[in-house]
Amino acid sequence: MRYFLKLSYDGTNFHGWQRQPMDSSVQETIEKALSTILRKDTPIVGAGRTDTGVHAAQMYAHFDAVDIPEETRFIRSLNNMVGHDISIEAILPVTDDAHARFDAVSRTYRYVVTLKKDPFLFRYAHRLYKLPDVELMNHAAGMLLNVNDFTSFAKLHTDTKTNICDVRNAEWQYLPSEDKLIFTISADRFLRNMVRAVVGTLLDVGSGKLSINEFVEIIERKNRCEAGASMPAKGLFLTEVVYPERIFL
Amino acid sequence: MRYFLKLSYDGTNFHGWQRQPMDSSVQETIEKALSTILRKDTPIVGAGRTDTGVHAAQMYAHFDAVDIPEETRFIRSLNNMVGHDISIEAILPVTDDAHARFDAVSRTYRYVVTLKKDPFLFRYAHRLYKLPDVELMNHAAGMLLNVNDFTSFAKLHTDTKTNICDVRNAEWQYLPSEDKLIFTISADRFLRNMVRAVVGTLLDVGSGKLSINEFVEIIERKNRCEAGASMPAKGLFLTEVVYPERIFL
Repeated sequence: MRYFLKLSYDGTNFHGWQRQPMDSSVQETIEKALSTILRKDTPIVGAGRTDTGVHAAQMYAHFDAVDIPEETRFIRSLNNMVGHDISIEAILPVTDDAHARFDAVSRTYRYVVTLKKDPFLFRYAHRLYKLPDVELMNHAAGMLLNVNDFTSFAKLHTDTKTNICDVRNAEWQYLPSEDKLIFTISADRFLRNMVRAVVGTLLDVGSGKLSINEFVEIIERKNRCEAGASMPAKGLFLTEVVYPERIFL
Repeated sequence: MRYFLKLSYDGTNFHGWQRQPMDSSVQETIEKALSTILRKDTPIVGAGRTDTGVHAAQMYAHFDAVDIPEETRFIRSLNNMVGHDISIEAILPVTDDAHARFDAVSRTYRYVVTLKKDPFLFRYAHRLYKLPDVELMNHAAGMLLNVNDFTSFAKLHTDTKTNICDVRNAEWQYLPSEDKLIFTISADRFLRNMVRAVVGTLLDVGSGKLSINEFVEIIERKNRCEAGASMPAKGLFLTEVVYPERIFL
């Protein structure tokens, strides 16, 4: 039987999602707990691979098992073993060919910017000292919906076969009462480092460092070196992964 | 000249507000920064003394200085020196006899309970596994408004002269969409450990461990040993301290 794990994690103390030879990863931490409980080596496949320090308010992964304990007890055992930085929220039986990565039809990320020093957001937001032009950033963000090729925002030298993404939503929200800016972006898929490069480039537009015309040129020239800097990981959250109903039993 | 510092802090990594001989405290951290910038030993007096691990979303402290740098620059220098767990938000000139502790006319605390494992709340909420009876807890909490003597909820063997407090608000709020319970309590003053003992006792009412009659008896018998356990520090936030307008210049 195949199962989906629904989970969340604070990425601060992990070297990303993906198993690493030397460092602690979310995947490895969960695989260890699963394998101990199921008494069998149990690899998991995640919906995506978040980088070092990136958080997930919602994430899915699949694994195979012949027989699993009763759900409430299983979740409790897993949570007792994975530590306080990971929360296992549900275990969902799926069709045998369901795949956490390939079947995801939409992913949403959020990037949080704080405009004041906030001790409670130190691990969860990037600090900016000056409010950028939100209207201008939203104008530029809207253009991403008509872009197909995101090579300009892709990490160089990866083995990805295509840099085509279908961005369906990209929007900045300014919350003056909280001195916060939140960027939300949804797409069918994202390239490695793409959200953080998009956020950095949009912030360059908002600070006046880049004009809208220059922003368009960056996209058209498909050259990563021209886009803005990649923003720090701690402000980035994977917030939603959507699957077709048919895969859930 | 006397000044008020308006600040906030994440208490996780501090041994409370008050300067300790061996351990790192919020007071000591700020005094060190202030003394360095002002080139003069500069003690501060806080609005209250939060215990180890307790947070403050709003806190005030006063200090005296002959001459201070321009406010924006002064705040920036202080923030650069106090680390990411403390934020200095404002420096307000006050009357010479204004006192951060004695002039505070109201203090508000919040206690946060989470009903699910949430990696982002691990440092900022206490975890409960079962939803208590919120209506019953609010019935009991409302009774605190008619209590004068809070000896039942006071830490034993402290040198406080009186255990009289005027509680003006005490209320539980259940946020089902966030799986959270928030207790808010305001009073002219609080005794050491009082909020955490009140929360523990109210939760005993909510779980059925204590009846309302037993709750009333606990208050009347003025015996700390009968009240509920003191709740963990990490869920507790000092959220507001109110001063009379007249002290601000």
